[in-house]
Amino acid sequence: MSTQTLILILDLIGVLAFAIDGSLTAIRTARVDIVGVLTLGIVTALGGGTIRDLLLGVTPATFQDWRYICTALMGATAAFFLSRQLTHLTKPILVFDAAGLSLFAVIGATKALELGFGPLQATLLGVITGVGGGTIRDVLLNRVPIVLSANSHLYATPALLGAGLVAISYTVGLTWGWIAVVGALLCFTVRLLSLLYRWSAPSPPGAPPL
Amino acid sequence: MSTQTLILILDLIGVLAFAIDGSLTAIRTARVDIVGVLTLGIVTALGGGTIRDLLLGVTPATFQDWRYICTALMGATAAFFLSRQLTHLTKPILVFDAAGLSLFAVIGATKALELGFGPLQATLLGVITGVGGGTIRDVLLNRVPIVLSANSHLYATPALLGAGLVAISYTVGLTWGWIAVVGALLCFTVRLLSLLYRWSAPSPPGAPPL
Amino acid sequence: MSTQTLILILDLIGVLAFAIDGSLTAIRTARVDIVGVLTLGIVTALGGGTIRDLLLGVTPATFQDWRYICTALMGATAAFFLSRQLTHLTKPILVFDAAGLSLFAVIGATKALELGFGPLQATLLGVITGVGGGTIRDVLLNRVPIVLSANSHLYATPALLGAGLVAISYTVGLTWGWIAVVGALLCFTVRLLSLLYRWSAPSPPGAPPL
Repeated sequence: MSTQTLILILDLIGVLAFAIDGSLTAIRTARVDIVGVLTLGIVTALGGGTIRDLLLGVTPATFQDWRYICTALMGATAAFFLSRQLTHLTKPILVFDAAGLSLFAVIGATKALELGFGPLQATLLGVITGVGGGTIRDVLLNRVPIVLSANSHLYATPALLGAGLVAISYTVGLTWGWIAVVGALLCFTVRLLSLLYRWSAPSPPGAPPL
Repeated sequence: MSTQTLILILDLIGVLAFAIDGSLTAIRTARVDIVGVLTLGIVTALGGGTIRDLLLGVTPATFQDWRYICTALMGATAAFFLSRQLTHLTKPILVFDAAGLSLFAVIGATKALELGFGPLQATLLGVITGVGGGTIRDVLLNRVPIVLSANSHLYATPALLGAGLVAISYTVGLTWGWIAVVGALLCFTVRLLSLLYRWSAPSPPGAPPL
Repeated sequence: MSTQTLILILDLIGVLAFAIDGSLTAIRTARVDIVGVLTLGIVTALGGGTIRDLLLGVTPATFQDWRYICTALMGATAAFFLSRQLTHLTKPILVFDAAGLSLFAVIGATKALELGFGPLQATLLGVITGVGGGTIRDVLLNRVPIVLSANSHLYATPALLGAGLVAISYTVGLTWGWIAVVGALLCFTVRLLSLLYRWSAPSPPGAPPL
């Protein structure tokens, strides 16, 4: 399997995870109809990759390749019809969200590196790809984005670790395939552990403890 | 009259309608001065087309062609000075908004098709062009976007119908001119009917009725 | 010193000012941890220039040139560790914000002019560059952007004056260097005077006085 195919498959799994996550979040937090659910699912799934491609100066893959839109639509539609079963389960939403975050962080960094950007930019773009879709989702739902809230435990940090690992490995010349998988697993594991053990990043000095 | 000229004229009418709509919405819902009114008018008028062009990978027409900025400024300025007469009339705002939505949905889809994108992408881009400006307007005014709210009746759906009709017609080889007008009228009619008869899209299963 | 170098230096000073401004605003108005502080600092610092470059159709300088990211990170990190000393001082935030606004308005207009855009577009792009980062900051913090609020005194207007002066001077053939400095000082002075003397732009006719 070529690297290109592997990236596409991981990317589509991330799209599916974020589409389900975005749709369920919409149903849980706002009075939305089917159009709102599908819109938020698609925006959450495709937003991060679209911002990434705009910043990289390439036409967004989400619009050039119909498989992205179809995968996002499938995930959002499934979430809509299964919402009654899924909506009271908050944990699956968090797991889907962590999966999307991990895959997008690693893929965003890889795409930037392959286009010739440096490791610093690649890491930042990986984080933006990972948190971008969820941030647009939260802005549209009129709430403070999960990436900023001190109550959501570590969120950008795991993406930073996963994307940074990929960027450093690529820069020192390691081959891509397995590093990407390790980077995604690192991000996924740190995110879930931070939820489980309620890890928090340091607050500003003098601020009241969280 | 060439297709290019027809697109430009329809596009500028849409810009004017959305500029008036955005400015009046700003005056009605927030404490804004003239700068805020003009800003929101321009953003509502040019936002959808700008997002469309960024996603299509072309330099936004709104910045290449001064007629867009001037039309948006004119509409916003007129709305500012006539606000006392217009601001208590909620219905004209809805009609201007429906007109902008219809024209932008059709033009967005057309532009995508002419640049070689498939019917699925063209339909989605048409919807994004139609609802984009109003969504930015609502995000800036710190409220849930009209496109997501279950209380605003059908909004994305008419745009989907209009853009979809254009995309399908183009794909099966029908000529553009009349189809675009029919698509815009279809969107406009469905939007106004949905307001008149309080049509709603289905809610998620198990959710309380709207 | 070449014009290119002068632009870079002024741009980086603007980035530093906005990074400090964005981070301190985050600490003052929301419960954020170090990741949220750094994110908001970077977004405020790099947001305006990124939007400008996307609208101009060029790959954002903020991602091509590592000095932008590093400067933004430095400013945000300094603000985080010095927040206890700085956070109760609201005036420095306003001064940093005014400095960033002025530099970005002038540089945004200049970049647009050099890429061949007309004076109207250059002025508008200057304003967007100046107010863009702060607007994204306020949207992420879930509050009405400072540029729209009638309580924040003149904000877009000084940027309009500074960018407009540069655009008109360039169009009539004046050399760039000093005009840019004068334009930035004009914006900075008008912004601070408007804060000092509580200048406000006109409200819509019939609206209650502010």
